[in-house]
Amino acid sequence: MSHQKMKAGIVGATGYTGVELLRLLSAHPHVDVCAVTSRGEAGIAVADYFPSLRGVYDLVFQTPDDADLASCDVVFFATPNGVAMKEAPELLAKGVRVVDLSADYRIKDIPTWEKWYGMTHASPETVAEAVYGLSEMNRAEVAKARLVANPGCYPTCVSLALLPLLKAGRLKENMPLIADCKSGVSGAGRKANVGTLLCEAGDNFKAYGVGGHRHLPEIKQTISGLQNGVADGLVFVPHLTPMIRGMQATMYVHLKDGSDPHEILSGFYGDSAFVDIMPAGSTPETRSVRGANLCRISVQQAPQSDVWIVLSVIDNLVKGAAGQAVQNMNIMFGFNENAGLGNTPLLP
Amino acid sequence: MSHQKMKAGIVGATGYTGVELLRLLSAHPHVDVCAVTSRGEAGIAVADYFPSLRGVYDLVFQTPDDADLASCDVVFFATPNGVAMKEAPELLAKGVRVVDLSADYRIKDIPTWEKWYGMTHASPETVAEAVYGLSEMNRAEVAKARLVANPGCYPTCVSLALLPLLKAGRLKENMPLIADCKSGVSGAGRKANVGTLLCEAGDNFKAYGVGGHRHLPEIKQTISGLQNGVADGLVFVPHLTPMIRGMQATMYVHLKDGSDPHEILSGFYGDSAFVDIMPAGSTPETRSVRGANLCRISVQQAPQSDVWIVLSVIDNLVKGAAGQAVQNMNIMFGFNENAGLGNTPLLP
Amino acid sequence: MSHQKMKAGIVGATGYTGVELLRLLSAHPHVDVCAVTSRGEAGIAVADYFPSLRGVYDLVFQTPDDADLASCDVVFFATPNGVAMKEAPELLAKGVRVVDLSADYRIKDIPTWEKWYGMTHASPETVAEAVYGLSEMNRAEVAKARLVANPGCYPTCVSLALLPLLKAGRLKENMPLIADCKSGVSGAGRKANVGTLLCEAGDNFKAYGVGGHRHLPEIKQTISGLQNGVADGLVFVPHLTPMIRGMQATMYVHLKDGSDPHEILSGFYGDSAFVDIMPAGSTPETRSVRGANLCRISVQQAPQSDVWIVLSVIDNLVKGAAGQAVQNMNIMFGFNENAGLGNTPLLP
Amino acid sequence: MSHQKMKAGIVGATGYTGVELLRLLSAHPHVDVCAVTSRGEAGIAVADYFPSLRGVYDLVFQTPDDADLASCDVVFFATPNGVAMKEAPELLAKGVRVVDLSADYRIKDIPTWEKWYGMTHASPETVAEAVYGLSEMNRAEVAKARLVANPGCYPTCVSLALLPLLKAGRLKENMPLIADCKSGVSGAGRKANVGTLLCEAGDNFKAYGVGGHRHLPEIKQTISGLQNGVADGLVFVPHLTPMIRGMQATMYVHLKDGSDPHEILSGFYGDSAFVDIMPAGSTPETRSVRGANLCRISVQQAPQSDVWIVLSVIDNLVKGAAGQAVQNMNIMFGFNENAGLGNTPLLP
Repeated sequence: MSHQKMKAGIVGATGYTGVELLRLLSAHPHVDVCAVTSRGEAGIAVADYFPSLRGVYDLVFQTPDDADLASCDVVFFATPNGVAMKEAPELLAKGVRVVDLSADYRIKDIPTWEKWYGMTHASPETVAEAVYGLSEMNRAEVAKARLVANPGCYPTCVSLALLPLLKAGRLKENMPLIADCKSGVSGAGRKANVGTLLCEAGDNFKAYGVGGHRHLPEIKQTISGLQNGVADGLVFVPHLTPMIRGMQATMYVHLKDGSDPHEILSGFYGDSAFVDIMPAGSTPETRSVRGANLCRISVQQAPQSDVWIVLSVIDNLVKGAAGQAVQNMNIMFGFNENAGLGNTPLLP
Repeated sequence: MSHQKMKAGIVGATGYTGVELLRLLSAHPHVDVCAVTSRGEAGIAVADYFPSLRGVYDLVFQTPDDADLASCDVVFFATPNGVAMKEAPELLAKGVRVVDLSADYRIKDIPTWEKWYGMTHASPETVAEAVYGLSEMNRAEVAKARLVANPGCYPTCVSLALLPLLKAGRLKENMPLIADCKSGVSGAGRKANVGTLLCEAGDNFKAYGVGGHRHLPEIKQTISGLQNGVADGLVFVPHLTPMIRGMQATMYVHLKDGSDPHEILSGFYGDSAFVDIMPAGSTPETRSVRGANLCRISVQQAPQSDVWIVLSVIDNLVKGAAGQAVQNMNIMFGFNENAGLGNTPLLP
Repeated sequence: MSHQKMKAGIVGATGYTGVELLRLLSAHPHVDVCAVTSRGEAGIAVADYFPSLRGVYDLVFQTPDDADLASCDVVFFATPNGVAMKEAPELLAKGVRVVDLSADYRIKDIPTWEKWYGMTHASPETVAEAVYGLSEMNRAEVAKARLVANPGCYPTCVSLALLPLLKAGRLKENMPLIADCKSGVSGAGRKANVGTLLCEAGDNFKAYGVGGHRHLPEIKQTISGLQNGVADGLVFVPHLTPMIRGMQATMYVHLKDGSDPHEILSGFYGDSAFVDIMPAGSTPETRSVRGANLCRISVQQAPQSDVWIVLSVIDNLVKGAAGQAVQNMNIMFGFNENAGLGNTPLLP
Repeated sequence: MSHQKMKAGIVGATGYTGVELLRLLSAHPHVDVCAVTSRGEAGIAVADYFPSLRGVYDLVFQTPDDADLASCDVVFFATPNGVAMKEAPELLAKGVRVVDLSADYRIKDIPTWEKWYGMTHASPETVAEAVYGLSEMNRAEVAKARLVANPGCYPTCVSLALLPLLKAGRLKENMPLIADCKSGVSGAGRKANVGTLLCEAGDNFKAYGVGGHRHLPEIKQTISGLQNGVADGLVFVPHLTPMIRGMQATMYVHLKDGSDPHEILSGFYGDSAFVDIMPAGSTPETRSVRGANLCRISVQQAPQSDVWIVLSVIDNLVKGAAGQAVQNMNIMFGFNENAGLGNTPLLP
């Protein structure tokens, strides 16, 4: 442990991924948060804005201009899409490493990104350099990265479960690959919006984005890179479920004959601190990972069928966002990968 | 409308389907509830047990022996599995018509029933006579029935959406047919149980019964009867979602080329008061049917895929239980099918 | 019952009180809703905006200018504060009767109103004419009213419980009178707002408006009018509780010696369809009135104390808003007071 | 920090306070949990029973007889009332220190305890020795204690807020002192029970125990010991609010003239790590302490009244149970008082 702590900045820290970063970094042994920015809340103490942080942080929100982000070792963007693509390149040029929790650098193909996100990319030349931060997949590249594109929550939940099967080439090509996904409401962010009011999203269940969701091309990009011939079969339907945190992907996959998916998954993640392959016959539940940087996965064959059912749960704000961002930071700076991420899930 | 109201009894009225029957029948123009039984609560006033019914009912729970069920025109069994199979035949013999909300008479094949329900059937000879009360499918048979086996909630939600496609023979045979289903917690009933405590089921999402659920053979029986060659492909995964009422089925189906499922569904249900085919591109939400005897369905093709996504929502306690039971009673007795069932959903 | 139904209009029908009015009026035997207005949603079908109303209404939202409100027999204002005070006088002048669900006409003292609501009253001359629509208190005046100021939810919940005790002069003067109130989130309305997001208001409990809430002067006005010397002692603290519908007031009152509050309450409400005095020792719960125009009240002495505890529950959207508005309309037009309001509460 | 960790045992670890102790102790630098007992679950791995603890503990539940509790340095009783009173004395005799999270040793007056808890006390001679573990009140006694009676959740929430005012003698004697308390459902424990099902306690609010609650004599005992003449005025009404964790007490108090309660509270808790006196005009919310060993308090005068409103929030499972138990253990063993208790609250 170094005597001198590393300096971290957070751009756009008034949302749920921002406050979650603040929570996780408050327990990190090697990092001090030195700057948090918010255009709207500049001048407000972080502890006044988030009373859960009273006594934890003395920081005050600053405008991006006032904050000395360039003096940070690492800057996290917890901003809406379209901000990091404008502001990250300058920080990179000054030697600051960047973890972008928004979608700006996730998609390699610029026209695809621009189509799904409805804007012109402001720094397309930087996209190629960005490392897609699905930590368990790209650990080596993340270690060398200046810029990490932190994955979306759905892509993390789905891809972690499929990754070992894809790398082993076990999925049948040209067959449907269905990811029926359910997310807690915090995935929609902390913004004034009728659809995520307690009285709208509470005691209610619905699909959304059935006609197309931004995480579809992100998952397809990951899948295509791992095993050819499976991405075209992907069907992805997200649903909103009335809870705060948590996400589950229920995947229906066709495996090549003779596959033992439990063995493949267990083998792949045997050394992984953050992916837990559960015993055959068990089913993960989202609360078993609440507040923790964990993905729990189980797999079993459907009764009287040759379809396999893969269940994957994460806390969308932790392994699906802020936790994976800290994990990536740990890898980038050579810290123990689970530094600051060892907390036990909160149950009930 | 007759001047003399019909007499109804409810066996086992202390659970959620029981109290829901009481709510619905309180608004029924042609029915008086004359007897409610409960072994455990005999002697307690219904309005003391369910304060929501204060001022609505003067009834007192009776033991099955004390209640004069034989004098009723119709008796509903809102009991755990295994009760109706013992008590219904005697009532039928006395000329009482029966709607059984439990699973006792749903499965035609006795060994299958006995395997899934873990008991010996007490009245196998009566099973053949029972009409499976998926009202929109078996209206004519229900009208003549002495005994209706009211369908399970999942089978109702899934089968109503598939029924027109199956009848039209539009599903590809020998292909997977996936029903990813999500239920509110009331589906588990009103019994002391750790798993459905607010602190266990709240803010949590999980699959259950992945290795096999009792509603699987029930759905398979329905499917097989409508179009050959599709039942074997059925994969059914139920999930528990943290809400009180509501159920959604997200189905992934393979349709024969040239099918227009929206047209088929709209045509089939054009005259139906209780099934609402939503416009293309819309997605139903469970709260849009809260408290009402409705099923709302939408269908659309998955983006960049030939899989079709069929979404179906019901209130599991109404169209999935007590409401459909009243609908079946209406059909059996020649009342207007929506008598007592016209209430507008409660939103928010 | 007249053969010709009465015509009703709703101004501002996109909020929770608006949709609740639409639900209740859909079951009303004597009323047709002919016009619903919304500046923001003009041109949208009501059934597209609120899918729960598919198949129930064919109406399209209109701008207030396009809607022929003057041809209605009654117009409900389900608008934010500050709208009815501008638009109601013109309708009144044209012979339309008005029930205002906003706060515009509740407070008789104009400076008090202007202080708490932060605007200049646009029709102060009309305030005196408005009848405060706490139906059980002002039934006779409501029957003759052209304009009813429908009470706030907290004032309804608190005042109904205190009304009989105040009328009987049983409260000790110059003593504290504490109303600790808890509301479901729908009381905050259906507007984009961070504080009432599921992720902010869910799994959370807090007081708010402790330093002063707009319903304080409204309750004080009611109390002062019923028994002198008690209003000054009123302490009112509202809290937000993580549920959709429902409100409870827990009141701590000092009664004059020899009072029998249960008898007073039971006597006062003996003929009332909508106020239920529960047996001694029982406690009401909010779900026992969910969706229904009911107030349930119990009273008991605190153990080892001379303080009396009065518990009162309503559904804030029904007896606390739209239901009481319909009740007032029934009284105004000489209908049976519970026409359209007879539905049984939804439980669970 | 010692190289040798202390050994802790937990009796009855299958409930919510048990699993919360396991969570907190998993982060404790000086303690190893060596034994967990459960008669019902003996032989089951803790990580199978609580999947949130997979990868955290290798322990297996043992029967109390099989577990070598006598070799522990400290044993926590997380049992129903009536167990510790039988089993703790033997452990004490063997030199084990005990923190009892049940109510067995909280009440000094044996007849009072026996009346409220409905059983004969099995070890009345041990009661006198037990130190009431409201840590901030009895720190010095706890440090010397062999046996700590960990306070109830309501008494903690109420007493911490009143303690400084009582010690300063600022409450008016012979006046009502009202504590209107609201608890999340986890306070009822993890036992099969209809009343705390999601479908019963969800979307519902109610008072309970109005006629008398076991925490009333516990609070009275504490109050009487701090300032004479106030306990008789106590009115305590608990309510159940539909959330998992969290508790708020809203207290209405009469202060002697010239009191500055904010100053008194701030002064008293100036050095306390776990009690946060919030700025004047602010209101605490329960989620601001979720998962953390914190009590946040604010105080303000009611508008136009001489009543003061004191608001106090805790996480009932942490500062109201397991967290305070660990805090007491820290004090008993001379550890840093916040060892293992430094985690930041989980928000949202």
